Amino acid sequence: MTTVDDLDRPATAEVSGPSRLAERGEGISGEELQLAARNHGIPLEALRYDVTPAGLHYLLIHYDIPELDGATHTLTVDGVVDRPLTLSLAELRERPRVTRRVTLECAGNGRALLDPRPVSQPWLVEAVGNAEWTGTPLAPLLREAGISADAVDVVFTGADHGIERGVEQDYQRALPVAEALREEVLLAYEMNGAPLLPQHGAPLRLIVPGWYGMAHVKWLHSISVLTETFEGYQNAQAYRLRQNADDPGVPVTRIEPRALVRPPGFPDFMSRARVLRPGPSTLDGRAWSGHAPVVSVEVTTDGGETWAPATLDEPTDGDFAWRRWRYEWSPQPGRYLLSARATDASGRTQPVEQPWNRGGFANNMVQRVAVTVVPE
Amino acid sequence: MTTVDDLDRPATAEVSGPSRLAERGEGISGEELQLAARNHGIPLEALRYDVTPAGLHYLLIHYDIPELDGATHTLTVDGVVDRPLTLSLAELRERPRVTRRVTLECAGNGRALLDPRPVSQPWLVEAVGNAEWTGTPLAPLLREAGISADAVDVVFTGADHGIERGVEQDYQRALPVAEALREEVLLAYEMNGAPLLPQHGAPLRLIVPGWYGMAHVKWLHSISVLTETFEGYQNAQAYRLRQNADDPGVPVTRIEPRALVRPPGFPDFMSRARVLRPGPSTLDGRAWSGHAPVVSVEVTTDGGETWAPATLDEPTDGDFAWRRWRYEWSPQPGRYLLSARATDASGRTQPVEQPWNRGGFANNMVQRVAVTVVPE
Repeated sequence: MTTVDDLDRPATAEVSGPSRLAERGEGISGEELQLAARNHGIPLEALRYDVTPAGLHYLLIHYDIPELDGATHTLTVDGVVDRPLTLSLAELRERPRVTRRVTLECAGNGRALLDPRPVSQPWLVEAVGNAEWTGTPLAPLLREAGISADAVDVVFTGADHGIERGVEQDYQRALPVAEALREEVLLAYEMNGAPLLPQHGAPLRLIVPGWYGMAHVKWLHSISVLTETFEGYQNAQAYRLRQNADDPGVPVTRIEPRALVRPPGFPDFMSRARVLRPGPSTLDGRAWSGHAPVVSVEVTTDGGETWAPATLDEPTDGDFAWRRWRYEWSPQPGRYLLSARATDASGRTQPVEQPWNRGGFANNMVQRVAVTVVPE
Repeated sequence: MTTVDDLDRPATAEVSGPSRLAERGEGISGEELQLAARNHGIPLEALRYDVTPAGLHYLLIHYDIPELDGATHTLTVDGVVDRPLTLSLAELRERPRVTRRVTLECAGNGRALLDPRPVSQPWLVEAVGNAEWTGTPLAPLLREAGISADAVDVVFTGADHGIERGVEQDYQRALPVAEALREEVLLAYEMNGAPLLPQHGAPLRLIVPGWYGMAHVKWLHSISVLTETFEGYQNAQAYRLRQNADDPGVPVTRIEPRALVRPPGFPDFMSRARVLRPGPSTLDGRAWSGHAPVVSVEVTTDGGETWAPATLDEPTDGDFAWRRWRYEWSPQPGRYLLSARATDASGRTQPVEQPWNRGGFANNMVQRVAVTVVPE
């Protein structure tokens, strides 16, 4: 143990280093493993559920899960508003109640597949979930508070506290005013018909349908309206698409289109490689986009040499929930490499080559699932 | 895509290789990362909860989560019994109902800290949870079936199917008859007062208080009584303490004692290193053992140079649930390395040096939590 007089600067530098890229061929580090052991993705077989059950939805928690008391928790609305508000959870529950199915995906999904690999939470393709969120719409509350005509950003502050790249902070993210006023944005207090679990933001969180997970602030206690662009860490530094460390980059916002294959057959424990028996079989999975509804999914079973259209189930859950796709297949014994590729109504589709950026965000490169079909 | 006439052997070898140790300095591999992204541990701040909430309890799932229908699911009891039985879930629910708090820990907890590292699910220290399991005791059911006097092992079969080290299998584990007849063993259909979640074995699982997780067979559908030792993969090959690949080893059975520190202060996102302000603070955590009740916990804040006794809360939850410990501390600015060490009534305690074995099981080496105390 060392005790020194002024540890403030050395302490921060020692626990919270700069971002880095992994060396070529460098395995996943111990620090990345610590993140992977506590945050988790959806087990891909759980793509079978229309609504992702509790505990199978992906989780990305920057700091620690805070312990909050729903009985005393309040939400404040302040900044450039005519009538600052403070509401208890009971008061929020008395307001109009809406339930929406929304697909949430971590902006870092796909990061660990990038080359070179940005060193952070090492997601492969599984940082997604589709839950039913119940709460009250945010826009009427903002209108009641009376947002100033020159408002620019709305800042949402959670109760989770930590350090990131040397910056001590409560987790905070801002939305442009026009996004905050979208009718779909919810102050949510229930998930899948039950009170929010601690790890999903109990007792209150933001839901911003269509946006990557970093916008859906958990453990929400404060909303503040600004007349200038918010320059907090998570907006100005963390969640930006940059090509190098000096690039100011552009903000990460909405979810890029993605389809996932529910791996067919059964797995090897260690490699997770799939084994299937020959004969007729239905491939399926889910597809989503935060920009516009998914309009087509194509499937390849030969590693991308040929693609064929999949059938899409009717979208019954609104524009922000995933859709199931299906593809009939009758493989002979052999080795197959499966992918699915989603395209949305805005014309966006998934790349076969990696869309690299230094933070490892929004990598919607197509998933690859190796399947060996063995004789009966 | 390659199609060959007889893929049976190459296919198995290709998807399911032999066990191996990581090279010195080798980072976590992509295969280990796939496991870490789907299985997950308890976020250590969740050691605050007496009962681990759904979704925060550790999960280790060998193959895929199967999809079972509780309305039609049955449990059969057969083998060397006088009266083979088949019971529906409704019939099991009509039998005597017991709720027990039980700490479950994965036998592989601590594996990724071993040097050299066995390549498998890469747990650090977080593969644990303490839940309330409700079900009906197994022993009366076995007595009703009438176990033969020469019975040796009782085999429990789950509905999860996969390949492991080249062996295609349903997950099966046997207990010696005397263990299966312990009054604490439950056929559980509820966790924390709710029906089992899919990932925890819905609709029925075994709970064997005191044993590592591999014994608590999930998605249970069959119990078979044998007059010889069960030679299935999970008993005879997988879960054994071996010093090398040729060592027949000894079976992994009960949980070795362990204490965990709930990390104080707040974390850096990437390194998970802890930052704390100076002054009085209570360290706490949990301690458990499957061999005998925990009788003491010691704490060090200087990396093991000195140890001091912690206070143990009264054990109110039976012999198989974790106990909270507390330690008053008032650190000055500086760097600290915290550990806690549990000792149980059988005299077993935690080692400071790694108890290495080739499968990476039962590594209860003391946890180390680095804390930097910075001036206000």
